[in-house]
Amino acid sequence: MPTAPGMEWHDEGPAGAARERRFTLVRDGRTVPGVLWTPRQGAGPWPLVLIGHGGSGSKDEGYVVTIGRGLATTHRVAAAAIDGPVHGDRRNDPDATPILVIAQFAQLWAGDGETMTDTMVADWRAVLGTLLELPELRGGPVGWWGVSMGTILGLPLVAADPRISAAVLGLMGLTGPTRARIERDAPRVRCPVLFLVQWDDEMFRREDALALWDALGSSDKRLHAHPGPHGALPSEAFESSVAFLVARLRAPAPG
Amino acid sequence: MPTAPGMEWHDEGPAGAARERRFTLVRDGRTVPGVLWTPRQGAGPWPLVLIGHGGSGSKDEGYVVTIGRGLATTHRVAAAAIDGPVHGDRRNDPDATPILVIAQFAQLWAGDGETMTDTMVADWRAVLGTLLELPELRGGPVGWWGVSMGTILGLPLVAADPRISAAVLGLMGLTGPTRARIERDAPRVRCPVLFLVQWDDEMFRREDALALWDALGSSDKRLHAHPGPHGALPSEAFESSVAFLVARLRAPAPG
Repeated sequence: MPTAPGMEWHDEGPAGAARERRFTLVRDGRTVPGVLWTPRQGAGPWPLVLIGHGGSGSKDEGYVVTIGRGLATTHRVAAAAIDGPVHGDRRNDPDATPILVIAQFAQLWAGDGETMTDTMVADWRAVLGTLLELPELRGGPVGWWGVSMGTILGLPLVAADPRISAAVLGLMGLTGPTRARIERDAPRVRCPVLFLVQWDDEMFRREDALALWDALGSSDKRLHAHPGPHGALPSEAFESSVAFLVARLRAPAPG
Repeated sequence: MPTAPGMEWHDEGPAGAARERRFTLVRDGRTVPGVLWTPRQGAGPWPLVLIGHGGSGSKDEGYVVTIGRGLATTHRVAAAAIDGPVHGDRRNDPDATPILVIAQFAQLWAGDGETMTDTMVADWRAVLGTLLELPELRGGPVGWWGVSMGTILGLPLVAADPRISAAVLGLMGLTGPTRARIERDAPRVRCPVLFLVQWDDEMFRREDALALWDALGSSDKRLHAHPGPHGALPSEAFESSVAFLVARLRAPAPG
């Protein structure tokens, strides 16, 4: 393992078809907990997808792990996730319930969401820099998969980091405590985007979701909508969005 | 109209089968905005159902109005709703989006949820006292319908107010920033309760919902669960819960 400053590698996950390594990056006094999935066979280099989990979830929640392992085993693409603010291993109370975590996240978001966003973007960029030094990942390409809170915090990352060349975003709108930030960053997203909308989303109004998609700076973008509430993204949406990233990251670089 | 201290009656709603009157109660420097639905025909007295709306909603949102009008027209039961903290007409920005309101509510809830709860309980009790002086409502009986935020703030009301003799609660668990308060109040709920659970609720864990139902002090209680996420309460649940309240409020008082 490379010994990047502040990066520590921990135990490996279960011996499945994907290799699963946990890590922490210490920076500016914060400990950023993460996990990396890579194919077990072969030496790479592999494309990398960064996965931003949703509110009340974590890098270890069901759909994040499913996407990460699926990328590594089915698609031979690496994936990494880190815990968001007051989520997962950033807390000391592993039994905290979803609504408690959501309420505390919302407290930060409504309090000083700009700083929270900046911090999370900086954490992701530091992790990405370290991961791209691994021989099996060297250089990328890099994609983003993150909806709901994974777009609240991930859209500013995609806007800020030119190493990310394709993104799945959605379940969010041009609204919320950090609306001004999202409005500023959306036109700075220039890479290909697949944007997911739940047509009966009770958290984010349909028109705000459409407005956010509209505001994205990417010329190469598409919106996929399905019926149902915020929490009911269908498996088809997971599958097609992962396939979108794989296709984009495996395509020859333009030019 | 009676001229209770601080109570003002405003415009009537559209001329439908239910009579719809808006009011505000000014108390302790706060303005509590509300709406009252009563049957258009007859003079009462009618039973009264208090409706507590969910997070990001208001006294004027779709399902609250549907329940209120339905009670008045189909069941000849009066209904009233008031706006929750930072919700509805308690705000000056009527265009605030759902997620902004939820984030600000969560900020209050995680900040000083105990005080927020006390304030809302006091607002409801003052409104109820004034409404029960109306000749068409005189004396009650009174029921409660409120799930999710309508249980976060409504369960403490039902626990505190012996005038409420039947309640619909649910989409909530023994958890959250005010968990200690809910844990203290749940055994004080003694009236008949119908408790609604969404089996795949992504906001409130199944086991926390079951624990809250378990902790209710009522001997006469039932839990109705349906598959699906937090935001997808089926119409069957609305219909059966309204029917439950109507039956209880129309039944002869025990003893």
